[in-house]
Formats: sequence, C-alpha cells, structure tokens
Amino acid sequence: MTTNKASGKLWLYDTTLRDGAQGEGVQFSLENKLDYIRAMQEWGAPYIEAGWPGASPKDDELFAALRAEGPFRRPERIVAFGSTCKAGTQADQSPVLRALAASGAKTATIFGKSWELHVREVLRTDEAENLRLIRASIEFLTQSGLEVFFDAEHFFDGWKENRDFAWRVLEAALGGGARGVVLCDTNGGALPEEVQRGVRETREAFSPEILGIHAHNDGGLAVANTLAAVAAGANQFHCCWNGYGERCGNANLGTLVSLLQLKLGYEVVGPDRTERLAYLSRYAAELANTFFDERQPFLGRSAFAHKAGMHVDAVLKDSRTFEHIEPALVGNTRRMLISEQAGRAGVWERMRRLRPGIGKDHPGVAEAMRRIKEKENEGYQFEAAEGSLDLLLLRALGGFAEPFTLEDYHVWSDPARGELDSVAVVKVAVDGSSLHLAAEGDGPVNALDRALRRALSAFFPALERSELIDYKVRVLDGSRGTGAQVRVLAETRFGLAKWGTIGVSANILRASAGALLDALYVVILREQGAL
Amino acid sequence: MTTNKASGKLWLYDTTLRDGAQGEGVQFSLENKLDYIRAMQEWGAPYIEAGWPGASPKDDELFAALRAEGPFRRPERIVAFGSTCKAGTQADQSPVLRALAASGAKTATIFGKSWELHVREVLRTDEAENLRLIRASIEFLTQSGLEVFFDAEHFFDGWKENRDFAWRVLEAALGGGARGVVLCDTNGGALPEEVQRGVRETREAFSPEILGIHAHNDGGLAVANTLAAVAAGANQFHCCWNGYGERCGNANLGTLVSLLQLKLGYEVVGPDRTERLAYLSRYAAELANTFFDERQPFLGRSAFAHKAGMHVDAVLKDSRTFEHIEPALVGNTRRMLISEQAGRAGVWERMRRLRPGIGKDHPGVAEAMRRIKEKENEGYQFEAAEGSLDLLLLRALGGFAEPFTLEDYHVWSDPARGELDSVAVVKVAVDGSSLHLAAEGDGPVNALDRALRRALSAFFPALERSELIDYKVRVLDGSRGTGAQVRVLAETRFGLAKWGTIGVSANILRASAGALLDALYVVILREQGAL
Repeated sequence: MTTNKASGKLWLYDTTLRDGAQGEGVQFSLENKLDYIRAMQEWGAPYIEAGWPGASPKDDELFAALRAEGPFRRPERIVAFGSTCKAGTQADQSPVLRALAASGAKTATIFGKSWELHVREVLRTDEAENLRLIRASIEFLTQSGLEVFFDAEHFFDGWKENRDFAWRVLEAALGGGARGVVLCDTNGGALPEEVQRGVRETREAFSPEILGIHAHNDGGLAVANTLAAVAAGANQFHCCWNGYGERCGNANLGTLVSLLQLKLGYEVVGPDRTERLAYLSRYAAELANTFFDERQPFLGRSAFAHKAGMHVDAVLKDSRTFEHIEPALVGNTRRMLISEQAGRAGVWERMRRLRPGIGKDHPGVAEAMRRIKEKENEGYQFEAAEGSLDLLLLRALGGFAEPFTLEDYHVWSDPARGELDSVAVVKVAVDGSSLHLAAEGDGPVNALDRALRRALSAFFPALERSELIDYKVRVLDGSRGTGAQVRVLAETRFGLAKWGTIGVSANILRASAGALLDALYVVILREQGAL
Repeated sequence: MTTNKASGKLWLYDTTLRDGAQGEGVQFSLENKLDYIRAMQEWGAPYIEAGWPGASPKDDELFAALRAEGPFRRPERIVAFGSTCKAGTQADQSPVLRALAASGAKTATIFGKSWELHVREVLRTDEAENLRLIRASIEFLTQSGLEVFFDAEHFFDGWKENRDFAWRVLEAALGGGARGVVLCDTNGGALPEEVQRGVRETREAFSPEILGIHAHNDGGLAVANTLAAVAAGANQFHCCWNGYGERCGNANLGTLVSLLQLKLGYEVVGPDRTERLAYLSRYAAELANTFFDERQPFLGRSAFAHKAGMHVDAVLKDSRTFEHIEPALVGNTRRMLISEQAGRAGVWERMRRLRPGIGKDHPGVAEAMRRIKEKENEGYQFEAAEGSLDLLLLRALGGFAEPFTLEDYHVWSDPARGELDSVAVVKVAVDGSSLHLAAEGDGPVNALDRALRRALSAFFPALERSELIDYKVRVLDGSRGTGAQVRVLAETRFGLAKWGTIGVSANILRASAGALLDALYVVILREQGAL
C-alpha cells in the first residue's frame, strides 16, 4: 500500500460543512461554520469545502462573511461547491456558476453525472449534451481564474455499467481545464476491490494531476475504500469529521488521517498535527450539535478503554499487548474501565490514584468491588461517571465525610408564572447547622440546581467557578415510558478538568438530584485537593 | 471475492453476548440474555457464543438456566467461551476447562496466545509450555465430547513478528483435536492486505476444516478485514450486532450479513432471513440498553434517508439513483427527510400521504416549508419526530382542530411523600367544556403524563391502548447546564405503529408537555383515521 507514498503529496479534502451537513441530525449555524473554518485553517487542512453559494441563504451569508474577512485569510484553503449548468443552458448564464465565480473562493468543485442511468433518468438528456455542459461549466470557472475539481458523481456505478461512458465524462472535465477529477462512490455501495480497480485503471488511462476519491459508508467500507483508492494512485481523499454525511455518512476524517499518517507513513498533515485529532473531532461534534460516538476508532473515549479484567492486567504490564498505537499520538488517553468485568486490577489501579501506596489487598479494594456490583445492579454505570465512581471509591476507603448533605427539598412548577415557572426549596446541612434556601428556575431540575448552588456557594466559593456543561437523561426500561427507571448523567467542568456524575431513580427529579449532588461534591473535593 | 462461495458453507459466529458485552455501555441482564438467545435461535444463527461459564456469577446463572431448558433446546447453536488452562497446570485440573465441560454446551471456544510478546510478557512462560497447555486443554475438551474452536489471540501481530511461532500454535490446537482455528486481530490494528495474506497463507499451510476470522474495529476496518479474510478462504466470521465489542467494537453482524449475502452472494442465513436484520439489530440494542446508531450501514434509519433536495427528487424518479440496495431486503424503509435542505419535493411527498391528490403548488406546501424553517430555528428537528411533523403538516393544510387543548397545569414535588412524590393538576378543554384532573407520579414529568392520560381517556379510549415507549432529553446548548434549551423526544407505540414527537423549551417540563401533547394528538388522530 505504498504506491504513491514516495511520490509526495496526498491531499486531505474536508467536506464536513457540505456533504457532512447533509447528514441527518447535523446542523451548523453561520457562526459555527466560521468557527469551524478558522479551526481547520489553523490546523492546516489543505482543502475545506465550505458550502454551496447560491443554494441557500445561509451559505450566501457564509461566503459574504468570508469575503468580509479581508478577503479570505487563507484563500487557497476554502472551496466553494456547486453543480454544472443545466442541460440546454449556457455556462455563462448559469446562476450557480456565476455564484461560484463571485464567491471569493479560489477553488471550486462542481459535480456532474458519470453514470448513464443518471443522465437518462435524472437529467433526462443525452450523452453529447452531458459532455458539453461539463466541459463548458469547467471552462467558464477556469476562465474566471478558479482552480477547479470535478466530482464525477456515481463514478463506480457508471464505470461498472459503461466504462467508456464514464471515462468520456472525465475526459470532458480535464479537457475543460479541471486540475483534478474526483471519483465518487455516491451511493456508497462499492467494494474495495472495485474501487481499487477503478482508480488504478483511471490513473493509467488519464494521469490527471489530482485524482480524488469520495467514498460513502453505506456498506461500512468508506474508510477501506479510501485506503484502496490511495493504494491504487488516488492523491486526494474526501472526508468528514466523525464520518458525517448523507445517509450512513462519508469516510471518517480522523480515522483516515490516523491510518494514512500514523500506520501507513503518508504525510497528510504536519507531523505534530495528529495530536489535535481527538480535540478537533469533538469540537466538530459540538459545533454540529450531535452526539459523539465514543467507539470511534482512534478518537473515541472507548478506543483505548480496557474493561475485561484480563485486558486491564495485560495493558498494565505492556501497553502494546492490547493497543495498536500509542493513544497520545492522536491526542487520546488510555482508560481503565470499572465495571463488573473489570476485576481487582482496574479498581486497584484507580484507587491508587486517590490514595497512593495502598496495596492490592487493602480491604477497601474488595469493599469497592462489592459496592460497584451493587450499584450496577440498580442501573448505575460508572463508565461515563468517573466523578461518582471516585466518590464511591473514597467511601469504600473509609474516612470520607460529605462536605454537606441535602436533608430535604420541595419543588413547585406552575407555567402561569412565565419563564421561571419553578421554585425549589432545599434544606442543606453544612458545618453543623441546617439552612433553608429557595431559588426559581426554568423547570424543576434547573430550580433545584440553582437552589443548591445558592445555598452552598457561601461555604464553597469554588462552586461558582464550576459549570454544569451537559445533562442527559436516559430511560433504562423504555417500555414503561415516563414511569420507567431513569439514569441522569451530568457533566461538570471545573478549570481544565471535566467529569461525569450519575443518579438513578424512577423519579427524574431524584435521579437529577443524585447526579447534581455528586457533581458538587467532586468540585469541593477537588478544590480541597482531596480528589 | 468468490474464493469459497461455491465450496459451500460460510458460518456466522455471533459473539454479541461475550465480546460484545465487553464493550463500554453494553449490559445484558440474565433475562435479556435468554431472550436474546431465543431470538437468535429462532432466526437461525449457526453459532451463538453465550458467555464464559465460571467467569462471573451471571454467566453461571445463564448456563444453569440454559441447562434447565431441558436441556438446551438447540444445543448445537450455543457456544461456551473460556481460556486454556494456566501455565504450569494440568488441563484436567483446570476449573475453567471443567466449567466448560460441565456447561451443557456442545461447542466450546477457548483462546490462547499466538504472539511471542504475549507469551513472554503476559503469560510469562516459554514456547514449549504455551504449546503444551493449548494442546492439552483442547484434548481435554474434545475428550469430554465437545466440538472445539481455538481463538488464536493476536494472530496477525504474532504472525507478522514471528510467523513460525504463530503457526506452531495453530498446529498444537489442531493437533489437540480442534475442529477449527480462529485468527483474531485482537488489537484491531491490522490492515485488509495483511489480513488477506495471513489468512491465505494459513489456509494453504494447514487447510483446517474451519478457519475463522475475528476482527476488531480499532482502525475502522473490521468489516473490510472480515471481507478480505473470507475472500482469502476463511469460512467462519465472528461478529456482533451493531458492532459491539471491546474498545471500538467487533465486526458488525448486520453489515456483514448484508454485504456477504446480498452483495456477494454467499448464503449465510436462509434467503428470507435478511429481512429480519433491521428488527434484530434494534432488538439487540434494546436488550443491551444502548443507543442505536441510526447511521448504521443498511439498518439505521438514516441508511435510506434522503435529505438534500436533489437526492429526494432523483430517488422519487428512480430509487437506484441514490440507493445501493433495496431497503426492504434488510427490513428497512426509505425515508424522505424534512429539513431546511429538503426542498419542496420531500415536503410535498409527505403531505400527499396525509391529503392524497394535493398538487405540488398547493399553498399548504409553501406554508409547511415556512413553519418547518421557523421551528428548526427554535431548535426543533423533525427527523426523529415524524408525529410532530405530521401535525405541523396538517396544520399547514388548514382545517385541523386539536381534539383537546391543555389550558393550564401545575406540578408539586416533595420527596418526603415517598415513591409517588409529585402531583400534577391539569386543566384540559375538550368537547366544549373544561375539566380539572390530578394525578400522582414518580417525578414531575411522570405525574404530568399520568394526569393528562387520566383526564382524557374517558373521551379518547384509544389513549389507554397507546404506550410511551421512550423518552429522551437532549440539552441543545450544553454550556448552560440545567438552564440550557432542552429538546425532549418521546416515542409512542400504538398497535404496530411507532412514532416520535418533540418539544423544545428551556424548561424541561414545558418541553416534555409539548412532546407528550403531540403524542396524544397523534394517537387520537390515528384512531379517528385522520392520520
């Protein structure tokens, strides 16, 4: 798999903001897109497809904002996406092409049809017209001073059905002045061997300066197909953070950079840049407002997490035994999971961080194992709640006193009150005395959270510097609807540290109170240096 | 990729309950495991690895329960998992091997080391002893009447470092009477070409009756590696539903069956059995109590969902244009997503189901588009809330009157009351009159849900036959903690139909009320035949 490694360049082409944004549940605001582009320029991504000027008001605003930045700070990096002119029309009259030329971007990628079926059934035109409009569209853009790539839509389907038809399309694109052609597996159904053969034969027939691959994941093979294409001579690969994209998504950017650069030796980004992968993939997920898949290769929290007792043992002896690369290379970290399968070694390893020097046979270790199993039977899961886990371990070690206790609480909600419709009254015991405090909130959980913080921040000022950054509710037994057991996970940030806490109850308020209390305990203990 | 297609059998080996259960966040109760095994036997899975007798009380209970089923109903299908005896011990004294022999399963899979590094660093023994204990362990099990498979842990790493060392391990296993050896990429770091070469050379050197592949997804290549192994002569493949498994997971069962059977022509399960894939993968996710990845190849809701305006248009013309297989073959369905990118065609398509015969230019279509954009700006997403979407479309078409309205509600929560600590009072207007009703509940949302159902079921008896099956809360702007905007998604089942509804508010109670109200409206409208 080293065909073009020596010959130099392999260009990453990021289409997170365009094809990625077509994925279900992925949404970027204008501000998100600008933040994203700045972060990716900073990182050094060679091509960043930003959007389709003229296709939606949001994308028009985006390109206007980019032009206003004086012009584009690193214009060579930003790509405007669009289509060819329509059948039966002239390129210089096409609103799409004119919007691309006026976008301010120095690179444009336009797509066209390379599958006979599409020309016949979707465009409803003939081959000659299809070739004319591709060539003319690209000529118009190159004459406007743009670097142009041509996305050959459905290339592999088209090429399997009629190779020469598909190749004549590439010929027209290159004849029009395209710097590169991109072979797209638009439906995502191609297999690695087909991709490898299609790319190799195309590379031999045309030798375009840039030959790209755009793979979708409908067969679960987008990453493998991209590797196969690169091995066969592709030197540009399209990808999205976290595998976003239409239907099952595009090839995963983080997986590909990790594989190509760290395992296969290509230089895709600067040598010190892979360490930013874990951060950037989460940043992209935050901007896109989606869940982050923690099982994601290389970058998920689970990627270097060891749960089975024996694995934990072995990794503690030699990390190569169960890790295929060093997690730090992609900015990730190793984790030893605590669960019923973890066994003593993992629990002990974690307890040693809290109380250095304790032996494997310390009675607290067995006590912690017992408590973990008991809680897990009630529906607790400590894998995403390391804050609550540390509290459990401290309690098992003995000698840990809660910095305060919640003695009682009441909550009233009444939508007629308007925005802050809920009132919570809490009674907390701290420093030997009890105090009552009330707070309003937007909904019962928010009111409870506010009342607790208000009551306690006089005693523990650190609480004001901490922040609840995420709050999730999971129904454990879906079949009982709102009456089922719920698990609340809260995530708290305090300085640079971030951790989860958990509460479980059939009552959403009680489960929330459990998670909130643990969160506050951990802040206080961290501030005191006890955690 | 047809090497052994003609030669016959390709065995699916399901390790969801064993390796799958080692994945983070995956947990099966004893009842879950029994339900799962019944469903998989029913489906016709050739091998179902159920657990490790002797390793945990839960797995002991499982095998006891399976034996109690008089004995195992289809004993040939259930596999017990375990390890070889330990270095320096005799096989017939090994508690692990004795537990396997006593488990009642007719097949056992045991793992052992085929990488020198592991023998040296983890087992801390020498090669001769490693070979002895593998051979002796397998002999013990075959003499106990079991069919035995040997999992060669870390085979590809071991084989790359010292091919003959790895092969001598396989030789010992086959010499001990193993019916098959399984080449495991335990760390998940192998590349398809390495796997293909390793399998081909091993197949040529040994010709075992069964040669298995066990691939992990740490490089995002578990599916591709499994395909490569099968092409090179492997005739058993390990896999888990939804790609569960240690760290980044194992090869995805549903993806592999779809690819191997529907695209490559192997007969893995009966020809009519692939249609159960979509159902079973969700069933496994429910039992494992995990989120279902809706982008999952073939089986996710997004797999045949079309969002971009142009794709929707084309799919309506000819589905082959943007779909690589027919969704019904795997029990999935096509969806036209409604979102700011969807454009008129998708909205119109959905509205025609509600009001057959309306034209593309009906003013309701433009009105619906306007309302969708407005709601999306507020944080609504209709992709998982098709119930709420249909209500919006009906309203945009005009002439839709809510069957009842919620005029007011109050909720009190007080943990001193015990289990049912919350009371909700609702005021609903129905059939021209207002009525007040109260109900207790476990937490404020549950109380509100109960009060609404109680108030309304006298008027709409269908509500009693409907069921709220899932309830999810998503914080839209995590950085504001419990004060952030929340999106509540409720899922309701009514007869065979299932749909989602949505509410968005900074107030969790108000967002819940929105989703609950929509859910009740949809039940009533469906019962009336208006939806």
